[in-house]
Amino acid sequence: MTLPELPLHEQHCRPLGPTHALDHAAAESALARLDAGWRIAGTESALALEREFRLSDFAAALALANAIGALAEAEDHHPDLELGWGRLRVRWTTHSAGGLTLNDFICAAKIDRLPP
Amino acid sequence: MTLPELPLHEQHCRPLGPTHALDHAAAESALARLDAGWRIAGTESALALEREFRLSDFAAALALANAIGALAEAEDHHPDLELGWGRLRVRWTTHSAGGLTLNDFICAAKIDRLPP
Repeated sequence: MTLPELPLHEQHCRPLGPTHALDHAAAESALARLDAGWRIAGTESALALEREFRLSDFAAALALANAIGALAEAEDHHPDLELGWGRLRVRWTTHSAGGLTLNDFICAAKIDRLPP
Repeated sequence: MTLPELPLHEQHCRPLGPTHALDHAAAESALARLDAGWRIAGTESALALEREFRLSDFAAALALANAIGALAEAEDHHPDLELGWGRLRVRWTTHSAGGLTLNDFICAAKIDRLPP
């Protein structure tokens, strides 16, 4: 009997290395488990997971950055953020793996579950 | 253009339009009044004022982003921020003027005076 895999947002990041990097097909498969809006970016040798959020103003974008920051600290996995008036772009990648890993999708799924 | 003599960090932003845009020479002159590290970026038709800060970790970069955010709200003038582990890039420009104005340098000077 195969136990059902935990939902991504209920999983936690763990230290991952190059052997855990997802290829483009595996990344696309994981992408399907996230809310719409996320996309795979970058090249095969340096994949990343991105989403741009539209917010009401600068303060709302900064508030979302802080919520993501708290989540990132809890998971010890940190994104790149681009913040401007009414927008926040989030970019996940796993530097220790040289690309995308499950950690990136776990954090993205946790963002999907943040309260609005 | 003669810049007002009041120290930049003691001035406040005000609504500015295209006629207040600084040309490259005026921008370089204002740049000399800021701490080292700031630079004029972009093209003559879309100048911006940028600085990249190196911080100890993600949380420190986010803390600086919040301090800058508070200053931006107080002045009702908002930068673009690029935040990652241990780094924060700040980019000022005045969209209503289509380039750099005194407002951008006032906010940069206020960042220079933030407590460490």
